[in-house]
Amino acid sequence: MSNHAHAAAVELFEHHRGLLDRAVQAIGERDYWSPFPESLKHYPEEAVKGAQSAFEGLLGRHFALAGPESVARVGAERSPYGFDLGVSYDQYDAEALMTRMQAALPAWRDAGPRARLGACLEMLQRLNALSPTLAHAVMHTSGQAYMMAFQAGGPHAQDRGLEALAYAWRAMAEVPETARWTKPQGKQEPLVLDKRWHIVPRGLSLVIACSTFPTWNTYPGLFASLATGNPVMVKAHPAAILPVAMSVRVAQEVLAELGFDPALVSLVVDTPEAPVSQRLALDPRVKLVDFTGSSAFGDWLEANARQAQVFTEKAGINSVIIDSVRDFKAVARNLAFSLSLYSGQMCTTTQAIYVPRGGIRAADGFLSFDEVAQGLAGAIRCFLADNERACAVMGAIQSEATAQRIQACRALGEVLLDSEAREHPQFPGARVHTPLLLKVDASARHAYAEERFGPIAFIVATDDSAHSLRLAGEVIGEKGALTLGVYSTDDAVLDRAEQLSQEVAVALSINFDGGVFVNQSAAFSDFHASGGNPAANASITDGAFVSRRFVTVQSRRQALA
Amino acid sequence: MSNHAHAAAVELFEHHRGLLDRAVQAIGERDYWSPFPESLKHYPEEAVKGAQSAFEGLLGRHFALAGPESVARVGAERSPYGFDLGVSYDQYDAEALMTRMQAALPAWRDAGPRARLGACLEMLQRLNALSPTLAHAVMHTSGQAYMMAFQAGGPHAQDRGLEALAYAWRAMAEVPETARWTKPQGKQEPLVLDKRWHIVPRGLSLVIACSTFPTWNTYPGLFASLATGNPVMVKAHPAAILPVAMSVRVAQEVLAELGFDPALVSLVVDTPEAPVSQRLALDPRVKLVDFTGSSAFGDWLEANARQAQVFTEKAGINSVIIDSVRDFKAVARNLAFSLSLYSGQMCTTTQAIYVPRGGIRAADGFLSFDEVAQGLAGAIRCFLADNERACAVMGAIQSEATAQRIQACRALGEVLLDSEAREHPQFPGARVHTPLLLKVDASARHAYAEERFGPIAFIVATDDSAHSLRLAGEVIGEKGALTLGVYSTDDAVLDRAEQLSQEVAVALSINFDGGVFVNQSAAFSDFHASGGNPAANASITDGAFVSRRFVTVQSRRQALA
Repeated sequence: MSNHAHAAAVELFEHHRGLLDRAVQAIGERDYWSPFPESLKHYPEEAVKGAQSAFEGLLGRHFALAGPESVARVGAERSPYGFDLGVSYDQYDAEALMTRMQAALPAWRDAGPRARLGACLEMLQRLNALSPTLAHAVMHTSGQAYMMAFQAGGPHAQDRGLEALAYAWRAMAEVPETARWTKPQGKQEPLVLDKRWHIVPRGLSLVIACSTFPTWNTYPGLFASLATGNPVMVKAHPAAILPVAMSVRVAQEVLAELGFDPALVSLVVDTPEAPVSQRLALDPRVKLVDFTGSSAFGDWLEANARQAQVFTEKAGINSVIIDSVRDFKAVARNLAFSLSLYSGQMCTTTQAIYVPRGGIRAADGFLSFDEVAQGLAGAIRCFLADNERACAVMGAIQSEATAQRIQACRALGEVLLDSEAREHPQFPGARVHTPLLLKVDASARHAYAEERFGPIAFIVATDDSAHSLRLAGEVIGEKGALTLGVYSTDDAVLDRAEQLSQEVAVALSINFDGGVFVNQSAAFSDFHASGGNPAANASITDGAFVSRRFVTVQSRRQALA
Repeated sequence: MSNHAHAAAVELFEHHRGLLDRAVQAIGERDYWSPFPESLKHYPEEAVKGAQSAFEGLLGRHFALAGPESVARVGAERSPYGFDLGVSYDQYDAEALMTRMQAALPAWRDAGPRARLGACLEMLQRLNALSPTLAHAVMHTSGQAYMMAFQAGGPHAQDRGLEALAYAWRAMAEVPETARWTKPQGKQEPLVLDKRWHIVPRGLSLVIACSTFPTWNTYPGLFASLATGNPVMVKAHPAAILPVAMSVRVAQEVLAELGFDPALVSLVVDTPEAPVSQRLALDPRVKLVDFTGSSAFGDWLEANARQAQVFTEKAGINSVIIDSVRDFKAVARNLAFSLSLYSGQMCTTTQAIYVPRGGIRAADGFLSFDEVAQGLAGAIRCFLADNERACAVMGAIQSEATAQRIQACRALGEVLLDSEAREHPQFPGARVHTPLLLKVDASARHAYAEERFGPIAFIVATDDSAHSLRLAGEVIGEKGALTLGVYSTDDAVLDRAEQLSQEVAVALSINFDGGVFVNQSAAFSDFHASGGNPAANASITDGAFVSRRFVTVQSRRQALA
């Protein structure tokens, strides 16, 4: 790295400094804040209009990135909306890649926090400008509907990236770069040392992306590692490479312009037949692993990647407890949207809804268990009656395995609402299925207390709300969860729920019957996962998410007399 | 816990708030600062005068603490100064202890950060008042000389405890307790949520103390865990229980006075024949383990206590590189003191001293390798010539194993300075041995590149300073180290050393030839260990040391319209 490069990166830091300072303020205050607009109206008209063709221009071609010599080309992404993307990507020899990234580390480390933050902030700004096009890539890999793919894959993902930068900057800035240490010695001359502290990265970072949120779940680890000095291999899910590759390209462009090796952020691709994550995760040079995906592989990483700090987000049994309500119709509408959004493929979507079999109190009277169950089924049916709206909310089912799971789960309980295949108005080949809602008894834990990923939910009949709370606590304690919703007009129940949420370290949402949903998580305000139950061993994003990515190394020099 | 107890703890917080704020300022500035005076002159005269008899009053008796029913009494401490302490301690059934501590957790958690900090700050103040007496207990378990036992075991240990509290407070205070989240919706009413965040402890904390620094190495983990809400079992080393027990008693008194279960801080004792650490460390309720001691057990904990966050400080090969000097006599005096202090039983004491076999440049001319080697041996001999001063610096050898190791190591190289047994002026039975200094070739890695705990050091003949730097880097990369000292008048060598220190994440001390020593580590300024090489998987104390001890759990409630 030349001094010029360093100066240019620090200039970018100064340029974006206001944004960073505002982000640091935001994580301290935790009110709503987002620098990246979630409405397409705020993006340049030509960028929005040209997004579709820009995306199409990427299809059926090789996607070139910086890296060592290519040893193979892979890529077999198929849109959940029914067509092959036809994009190929370079595979590198793992040894060659890691050797190159290790060689690039010292310059990136020595550039220091300001230069690294400058580069990372610039990457986010450019990613934001790319959002309308990125949205198509997210849509046609994850299956999210366009609007969600735009928001969750674009500005909301960028928010999460910036949030990670804010945490990283705050943590690094807590350590002064230098200090003079002067210890009085009574009447004698004081002892004086000149001290320096260096932020030293852990080593190579491996970020293993998922197929459902290829950017939202990837940016926090990517930016937290990169800002703290660690070169990052982003291992894309074979079904959702393109949005990751586009993100890596933006990062590489910024790095190259600043005179750093663009391979400091490298794309790693593989195939379902020959996965590479295990081997990479065990390499002694890999000191950080971020993973979003199955509990099986997440648990394996935690158990085996012992040389690394491992951050996992895995499966869980997100739950809702209905004790009593002010307005059942509003509750049902809220839950209907929650369960339909992206066909239940969010890591925060509710799976188990606990309802006393004796029914619940509502402001306007009493509702039997069946009235609650049928009311919810009806609300979903009603919400999805307009097929165009339904498809715009549900999107498509990401994988065939999830579509098959819906069918397989029909036998697990009494069907309250059957899943239907739907025809997508624009994409006739799209894999669209409405939610399956089942009724089960509390004793059927084998049914509802295993993660059933996809649009599959259970209404669980319990003895009473105390039983609901106890059951939810047991299941979450054992299997984990990212979200717990509670509906109650009884302060004692809410107090108990608040206690329970601490006991099993799950985020609690109380009486959501309006325009906010239990499965939504807002950057700069909501901690996504707590790291305290089996659904995730880390929060995205908190202090512990960044502080483990670097160490502080000091030097102290006896001051010359 | 009653509301009264909570109020009293918060009152203590307000009472000590100035101290805490000053400590937070100190860790941000990292200049010299200590609130706990290291001179006995600043302690009440009667406390100092009565310390000896207060200590003697504890000998030959049972030391009672709060806890579940006692199932056995153990204790066989023998002073390295040659007498049995004769103190016994209660052993508890592990199940009963952990059940009780788990039961006490919710009240301690719910008391909140302010109340917990209030209690912890009060504990430190009382420990400080107890320092003159505590010093005798540290002296007659660790073998440290009285003055060092007083400073390192008293005020310096309290500094480290307060430092951990400052980090814990800063990390917890970064998360607001509540916020209103208001998301604009264009012309519609905004979405409004009321949010709360709870600091939730990980679970039970196990702090495994060592025999050489029973308080200094224990307080950081103890106070970091306790302040963040985790009940703490302090497992004392069988050879150094008393100072730990006295510290636990102080903590229990404060907890009991405030209406908390005193067993929130519990003493765990065992015997060399029936150790209990392994079993406790694997218990699923134990979520935090702090350990200072051997690499073998530290590595075992890291590999096996998978349910816990594990913080270890283990063995390493602390090193010094001599390239060129301004004033060799001053360097030799400085190193002589370093090597003699507490008979080399500090985790920061130099073991390997790399010197080019062609000699070094000095301001006043050239020095051959032998002149350097003999000069250092002579400086130690001279420094220890006065037996009374020697004993006041060296103290006693903590364990018979270390005394035997000195003998066993004599065969590892050419003896430059042989170890001598000395008679202690006050304690004829004291185990006192002067340092052993050996000369070896760089090729004799089996000799100098294995930890030789105790007053055993090697002068290693290298090809040149580049070789010294390379060797030190290799050895530290492989075996770890807490300290690296470099002497050079050549900026290029110092720059390379500064790079090297980052590559192997070791704290660097440059040209120490005055009144500061490489093995000293000052709270609020020096990070003790980096956590980035095999000598320790964590730093004491940095952000990562505390942020992993709690998770943040949120609740959000739809605001009533």
